[in-house]
Amino acid sequence: MKAPLFQYRQLKDFAHKIFLKIGCSEPHANTASHVLLSADLRGVDSHGLARLSGYVRIWEAKRVEPDPQIEIVHETQSTAVIDGDGGLGLVIAPYAMEVAIAKAQKCGTGWVAVKNSNHFGIAATHAMMALPHDMIGIVMTNASALVAPTFSTERMLGTNPICVAIPAGIEPAFVADFATTTVANGKIEILERNNELAPLGWIQDKNGTPTQDSQVLKKGGALLPLGGDREHGSHKGFCLAAWVDIFSAVLSGANYGPWVPPFVSFLAPPPNPVGKGIGHFLGAMRVDAFRPTSEFKSDMDNWIRRFRQATPVSGHKQVIIPGDPERQIEKERLELGIPLSSKVVEDLGNVGKKFGVAFQTLS
Amino acid sequence: MKAPLFQYRQLKDFAHKIFLKIGCSEPHANTASHVLLSADLRGVDSHGLARLSGYVRIWEAKRVEPDPQIEIVHETQSTAVIDGDGGLGLVIAPYAMEVAIAKAQKCGTGWVAVKNSNHFGIAATHAMMALPHDMIGIVMTNASALVAPTFSTERMLGTNPICVAIPAGIEPAFVADFATTTVANGKIEILERNNELAPLGWIQDKNGTPTQDSQVLKKGGALLPLGGDREHGSHKGFCLAAWVDIFSAVLSGANYGPWVPPFVSFLAPPPNPVGKGIGHFLGAMRVDAFRPTSEFKSDMDNWIRRFRQATPVSGHKQVIIPGDPERQIEKERLELGIPLSSKVVEDLGNVGKKFGVAFQTLS
Repeated sequence: MKAPLFQYRQLKDFAHKIFLKIGCSEPHANTASHVLLSADLRGVDSHGLARLSGYVRIWEAKRVEPDPQIEIVHETQSTAVIDGDGGLGLVIAPYAMEVAIAKAQKCGTGWVAVKNSNHFGIAATHAMMALPHDMIGIVMTNASALVAPTFSTERMLGTNPICVAIPAGIEPAFVADFATTTVANGKIEILERNNELAPLGWIQDKNGTPTQDSQVLKKGGALLPLGGDREHGSHKGFCLAAWVDIFSAVLSGANYGPWVPPFVSFLAPPPNPVGKGIGHFLGAMRVDAFRPTSEFKSDMDNWIRRFRQATPVSGHKQVIIPGDPERQIEKERLELGIPLSSKVVEDLGNVGKKFGVAFQTLS
Repeated sequence: MKAPLFQYRQLKDFAHKIFLKIGCSEPHANTASHVLLSADLRGVDSHGLARLSGYVRIWEAKRVEPDPQIEIVHETQSTAVIDGDGGLGLVIAPYAMEVAIAKAQKCGTGWVAVKNSNHFGIAATHAMMALPHDMIGIVMTNASALVAPTFSTERMLGTNPICVAIPAGIEPAFVADFATTTVANGKIEILERNNELAPLGWIQDKNGTPTQDSQVLKKGGALLPLGGDREHGSHKGFCLAAWVDIFSAVLSGANYGPWVPPFVSFLAPPPNPVGKGIGHFLGAMRVDAFRPTSEFKSDMDNWIRRFRQATPVSGHKQVIIPGDPERQIEKERLELGIPLSSKVVEDLGNVGKKFGVAFQTLS
């Protein structure tokens, strides 16, 4: 059965109303619902509306401040640290990115470390805020520990994504947004639900032995850093995830490594926190702080076209430029609608009932 | 047979004299020999003295300006673009890092894109220049095309390394320095020399088929991005290498992608260059532009210790903190001497003869 399709506007309005119901201000509800839905539009379903009930649950667990006083607690000309007051990362990250962009306007680049935040949704949406300003956006965040460093049986790091968004001219922007693991956690969850095997190199069991058992995360297993095993460079994936963790949390004063509080409400935050909430790191660089924008964009167009023209491996159409698939999906979903699984539809229906907000199941 | 050991001072003096002979100024010869030898000290033998004859050969091919006028051609408070005048990357990169550090002193962070450069040796040495200033150093460089993006049979990117150096307090600094491929090219070269098979996931043949044939790079094959194949996240390794290429070369006006000139003198630079030389990107961030340095260092110490204490996989001692192995090797080699293979010793002897500089083979 094909998943039913829903119009963007309908889903955005629903999420907006729910965020108002939990106590968000009107502008915050608008931003949070925009960020959440941007994940659904771009095909990153794991970070979109599927998480709305999760945000509600951590609010119910009193682990989110719905009306946070977000403030800059330290700054220089090109840097700032922001305390998110325990609010939704969905609104704190855009605030931080605006600060980075304003600093870049003045002195070329702006870099913002954030503490006391929560899950910020999809990294690309924040990084892409830089693009209309002819700036490059860089965004990273830590997350609760699911990943074992090379040679560790313990989960020490989150899937810690990095996004780099780079403007081009006639070609669309280069937008690379990826977890620093072999695969996103969402892919394991799908295999787990369907009781299917995972390829070797994605996960390990509680003893650190590579396994194909997709149920292993419930049994003390862990995701693996990009590279998968030492022979294939998992120590490099570990370096990447560690870099993200340190920039997001040690620079800001958030929780790092195994102390990062989980997104899910049924798991308690680790005892003896070493900082406040989770951390993000966001940057903006003005292209013309380096080269005339027109020259840069012309070279980016040439870069993108040359890579698209690389001779493909037989059976594949062409090299995929980062950002292309998501942009294509966004175009389709804006036109045709956003598919939601029956589980998500049911979940949203329940959230709606809780707050007396109708969720239209008609598409 | 064990490789003979040589004292650091002896090798540094030899390289210094050779750089003078090709026309470097005294300070440039000093810097170039320091950077080159720092690779030998840290155990990154492929980027040290083993390359000295290669630098001489590209100088003979008139592809290096030994006495470059390195200059800032564009800048803002937090950024600069440097034209390396076709000089040795070994001296241009430290110059650029000094500029980044000076900008960070004034406005919190400094970011420098470099064009018209050549191979800069070991990335870590440049990034670690930030550490004594209580700054974080970030260094990346592009390189000539050896790596096929996911779904490409063509080599489009270099091994494009990234280094992030982060100061700690009592613990030594966190220094992650890695090529964005599954393995460094040097490891393939060793297998190739010994006619041994490579693990699957390191290389592909000219049709883009995964192969274990370590001779394949001579036959149109390619190195693979970190991840190895699509199922294990090679598209993420491609994103990383592309990021490095764009920051190093599109931001600076250097050659990018398949246009990057090769280090080896026996291969001609690609026709119709799109920029000048190869490119680097270097950054410095003052820790206290974010948090009081003492707080940051205390948390870095805690981070490092907690990761060292992670329960290891049976058969492994502990999680390796990035930078630990290289620091240990440096300590040993400063005390005991630097081992050089007979091939490198012979090579250095020949370089010495060419310029009338004695290379002492006695250790």
